[in-house]
Amino acid sequence: MRIVVVAPSCTLKREAADAVQAIVDERGDCELVIHPQCFLSDGHFAGPDEARLAALREVMGDPSVEAVWFARGGYGSNRIAEAALADLPDAAGGKLYMGYSDAGFLLAGLHKAGLDVAWGPMPQDALRPDGDISIHRALNWLVLRDRSALEPQLQTPAMAFNLTVLSSLLGTSLEPDFTGIDLMIEDLSEQLYRIDRTMFHVAASENVRKVSRLRLGRVSDILPNDPEFAGDETAIVKHWCARSGIAFGGRADIGHDAHNRVVPFGTAKS
Amino acid sequence: MRIVVVAPSCTLKREAADAVQAIVDERGDCELVIHPQCFLSDGHFAGPDEARLAALREVMGDPSVEAVWFARGGYGSNRIAEAALADLPDAAGGKLYMGYSDAGFLLAGLHKAGLDVAWGPMPQDALRPDGDISIHRALNWLVLRDRSALEPQLQTPAMAFNLTVLSSLLGTSLEPDFTGIDLMIEDLSEQLYRIDRTMFHVAASENVRKVSRLRLGRVSDILPNDPEFAGDETAIVKHWCARSGIAFGGRADIGHDAHNRVVPFGTAKS
Repeated sequence: MRIVVVAPSCTLKREAADAVQAIVDERGDCELVIHPQCFLSDGHFAGPDEARLAALREVMGDPSVEAVWFARGGYGSNRIAEAALADLPDAAGGKLYMGYSDAGFLLAGLHKAGLDVAWGPMPQDALRPDGDISIHRALNWLVLRDRSALEPQLQTPAMAFNLTVLSSLLGTSLEPDFTGIDLMIEDLSEQLYRIDRTMFHVAASENVRKVSRLRLGRVSDILPNDPEFAGDETAIVKHWCARSGIAFGGRADIGHDAHNRVVPFGTAKS
Repeated sequence: MRIVVVAPSCTLKREAADAVQAIVDERGDCELVIHPQCFLSDGHFAGPDEARLAALREVMGDPSVEAVWFARGGYGSNRIAEAALADLPDAAGGKLYMGYSDAGFLLAGLHKAGLDVAWGPMPQDALRPDGDISIHRALNWLVLRDRSALEPQLQTPAMAFNLTVLSSLLGTSLEPDFTGIDLMIEDLSEQLYRIDRTMFHVAASENVRKVSRLRLGRVSDILPNDPEFAGDETAIVKHWCARSGIAFGGRADIGHDAHNRVVPFGTAKS
């Protein structure tokens, strides 16, 4: 199994790359290539749009690459997603693309283009507390298709998104078909009023209203709301589900932490 | 001219109400009624959804009210906007609705329903530095239709929105027709990466792409971006306009400050 890491959003930290390489060396069950583009830096991004796009297109078109692993989130994959999906090379198929958070823009577009994608931990997660657990879980899915890595209540077809990313891709060319999907959302570093506003937007979508159920992952590092918001994130999501005729399916085991589980998009090829 | 203030979003501060009343008393050219709902408080909001909706519907249906002035922004008008627009009473017409920021959800929906709306200063602005200038400008439009209150380069038909509010109403029942509109946007208290992401979303809309031009008001209190974003807000908006075939029309004299000008939606009835 040959896995290549590229960074369509922000720069990968060297310490994270080293930690992941050490885990891979110890496991000995795959080959890991960390593309040098991961360490570029251009303002907010891991290099200019052109460099991030070129690295992604290079690995998409390489038949020897069996998994494309997105280095980390942050912000920026949306800026190159449409170009990444144009005139797909044959070699773009037959491999798995994995990441989460900002990488959701690419997951959506790649899935829509018929490719095999999964929400799951990324190399930068190695730096979190218990980050090695994340990395092993990711590799257990990428290399072994070990079902214990999966979100435990997953019903297929499924998808998972950062809520703010999901809101930002609605109405764009990246928006996938949500019909019958077990849709999981999570978020971080937002005030509750923003979560409420984003849920208003997402729940208004006729496409999102076609999900089989909506489940709420963790909303972490909630920023202070002045004044205190009435109700927590679960109350907010339930409110908008009820108003919009969406079945609320309870909590989901995803989030910006070491416990973040894998959610293959669509019907998992396991 | 009878003006009634209601608060569809957050609670109006007493000091702001008093300052506006003092200005109105001094001018002596209109009657100002501050609805008691403005001072309700329920978590984040100026009273529960039901109370904010009831106050708004009450003044919409009152033929003696010639202008409905939204007390302030914050967040929450989207939660009652759809219900506010249902089965419109005849008296809802023939009056002007004015506000900005979060009130944009209502401006959009009320305009779409054929009512006369304007982006413009709100009572809470009295507490800003030079806030009295804002209040006089608002009253000069509400009472006198004084064209010196208008955004100086305004071309009709026009609209103005907080960028994040605009992004959040796309795809909802509140989304108006942007064909041929001189569209102005502004924002506050966001990181530049969020401005970039929101512009990606807004500029992807086929509806927004029909504007005659997009102009950028002030983006104030920009929060630290880690790392520094490459480029400022003007570069970001120009970038997405160029990518999306939208004519960038330069800067606009709107924003979350005392200099915020009036932008009547559609073709101004002056």
